[in-house]
Amino acid sequence: MLINNKKYKTIWVNNFGKIKIIDQNLLPFKLKVAELKNLEDSMIAISTMQVRGAPLIGVTAAFGMYLAIKKSPLKKNIINSGEKLIATRPTAINLKWAVDKIVNEVLKHAVESRRYISLKIAKQLLEEDEVINKNIGKYGSKLIYNIFKKKRKTVNILTHCNAGWLATVDWGTATSPIYSARDLGVPIHVWVDETRPRNQGSFLTSWELMHEKIDNTIITDNAGGQLMKQGLVDIVITGSDRTTFTGDVCNKIGTYLKAIAAYENDIPFYVALPSSTIDWNISSGDQISIEERDENEVHYIKGLNSKNRIESIRVTPANSMALNIAFDVTPRKYISGLITEYGIVKANKKEIMGIKKKIK
Amino acid sequence: MLINNKKYKTIWVNNFGKIKIIDQNLLPFKLKVAELKNLEDSMIAISTMQVRGAPLIGVTAAFGMYLAIKKSPLKKNIINSGEKLIATRPTAINLKWAVDKIVNEVLKHAVESRRYISLKIAKQLLEEDEVINKNIGKYGSKLIYNIFKKKRKTVNILTHCNAGWLATVDWGTATSPIYSARDLGVPIHVWVDETRPRNQGSFLTSWELMHEKIDNTIITDNAGGQLMKQGLVDIVITGSDRTTFTGDVCNKIGTYLKAIAAYENDIPFYVALPSSTIDWNISSGDQISIEERDENEVHYIKGLNSKNRIESIRVTPANSMALNIAFDVTPRKYISGLITEYGIVKANKKEIMGIKKKIK
Repeated sequence: MLINNKKYKTIWVNNFGKIKIIDQNLLPFKLKVAELKNLEDSMIAISTMQVRGAPLIGVTAAFGMYLAIKKSPLKKNIINSGEKLIATRPTAINLKWAVDKIVNEVLKHAVESRRYISLKIAKQLLEEDEVINKNIGKYGSKLIYNIFKKKRKTVNILTHCNAGWLATVDWGTATSPIYSARDLGVPIHVWVDETRPRNQGSFLTSWELMHEKIDNTIITDNAGGQLMKQGLVDIVITGSDRTTFTGDVCNKIGTYLKAIAAYENDIPFYVALPSSTIDWNISSGDQISIEERDENEVHYIKGLNSKNRIESIRVTPANSMALNIAFDVTPRKYISGLITEYGIVKANKKEIMGIKKKIK
Repeated sequence: MLINNKKYKTIWVNNFGKIKIIDQNLLPFKLKVAELKNLEDSMIAISTMQVRGAPLIGVTAAFGMYLAIKKSPLKKNIINSGEKLIATRPTAINLKWAVDKIVNEVLKHAVESRRYISLKIAKQLLEEDEVINKNIGKYGSKLIYNIFKKKRKTVNILTHCNAGWLATVDWGTATSPIYSARDLGVPIHVWVDETRPRNQGSFLTSWELMHEKIDNTIITDNAGGQLMKQGLVDIVITGSDRTTFTGDVCNKIGTYLKAIAAYENDIPFYVALPSSTIDWNISSGDQISIEERDENEVHYIKGLNSKNRIESIRVTPANSMALNIAFDVTPRKYISGLITEYGIVKANKKEIMGIKKKIK
């Protein structure tokens, strides 16, 4: 999508075969492109969240595997590197999915072809992610278009965190229906949850929507419920980091609160996700291990100081304690539907298993 | 309560007759005592939130009226000053209640005695607030004690914003049951919602609990729902800025989200309030005018920089828009009970009208 009217993706292979990413830790204050030179760079990029968002983590891990195999294509290194990558973020299912895909495939081949094969798969995952997200947009935009057809006024969409194009290779998951509906001519306004503690809503979602010239307003994470009660939200669309095959959704902390508020106010609550985030092995969201991150993400916050420099300040009392759980689980009960690349399904086992049949 | 092991109140008349307050805008980073010299100081103190919290706003307004009357005890000035004070914060009912109380009383008296009378009423309100809050603590602590009796382990209490002693003259509303239960020997841990955008949870509640040596952990506003789902919250207690006589509660933005989460997870959700926050004129929370504050409170955040200086940084992209609605309304349906100075009542008209009969 556009940054300063120029097309970008979040990760790409440049003309010299180098793996490039946008270092998202500096956004929205600075646009910096970084290079992944080896497995370690990829691990750091994922764990420090230079790249984040389940789909982008998956693609980055795939290139991380390629870089590891480039260094040594032996089985021991491949298994070992895969395990290291998977350990960087425990919740995102795409990470394991992408790593497993490469490990399983390359080990079928001779040592000397593994480098080529792993690069091919990584590039394939990158291209597939774009297509998947475009399809999510195609299906999801109908929901928005139908609201517009009935309302004949600007459609107000609330989203949480960043499931935007910056969380994927391009288009985004939750934002793809928004970009597609915009392309269909629907007037749109987005309520952007700030999304503490890392502020991906204000830092990333608001920024990417602005660069795409879509009206949006940042609100604190506390505000969405009241806006829903006042009739100022027509639909909620979020992403998902992991979805059980029974329809429970694990996503950025705070998603659950918005889901129950939507439920109480009869507002449709949709989750946009590529089928790769579906975990076919667990039947309940309660079984998902929830990542607990460093409490300093709550104590410190980053922004621009009066000299226009990025600065981190402490926003809690000295010696105070904080807990930083990064995800929550929204039970299927609160979810109106799942927007996938294969169409929209209800958040239940029967309909989700229907998707499984369509996956090649 | 205690700050650095020394007893404080949030507002007091010193030995020389000066009106002193703690400037809460500098907390938790700096403890500064300020003086209210005239009506304007009082208005600024309320509107810039040097003092905040419905009960403390009421008492500060009362002293503001005294300072205005000290300057001119004529009816025109009294009416005019009252209107100015009421306009500083539109949502808090105590403000109007305290101003009306003084205006009505002083106008019954001769011009020359109005200064004395207004000071007497202001001092009375200050002392009454302490007694009221102690009683809220007495009744509310029983709820906490009963959980402890059953559980025999640390009681986990979640609170939103600061309805602590810093929001009142002393003891607090939501915190008074906590301090009282602690005095009864109940082991307590408090989950403190950060409470964006002004961070009164992390800046004030966590700070005052630490100075009173009560275990507490700051969480982002997004986290409470998941903690409830995991069984880590035994009871929620918040304050109220305005309560309808039918039991709807208007309080800091975000309260509503925690109330519905508690409801969905069968966790008791109590609101602690002095009867002065009950609005006897409106039957539904939907009729309450919700204060919209400056959007810069969302764009900028204050904290300590690496040189230990208080600094404000921008935490949203340049040119982004934000909305800052300061309160929300929690419908009575989600409220287990109201903890008042007259006892605990259900959030319904019948029980709340029972309180009205007890008010002198």
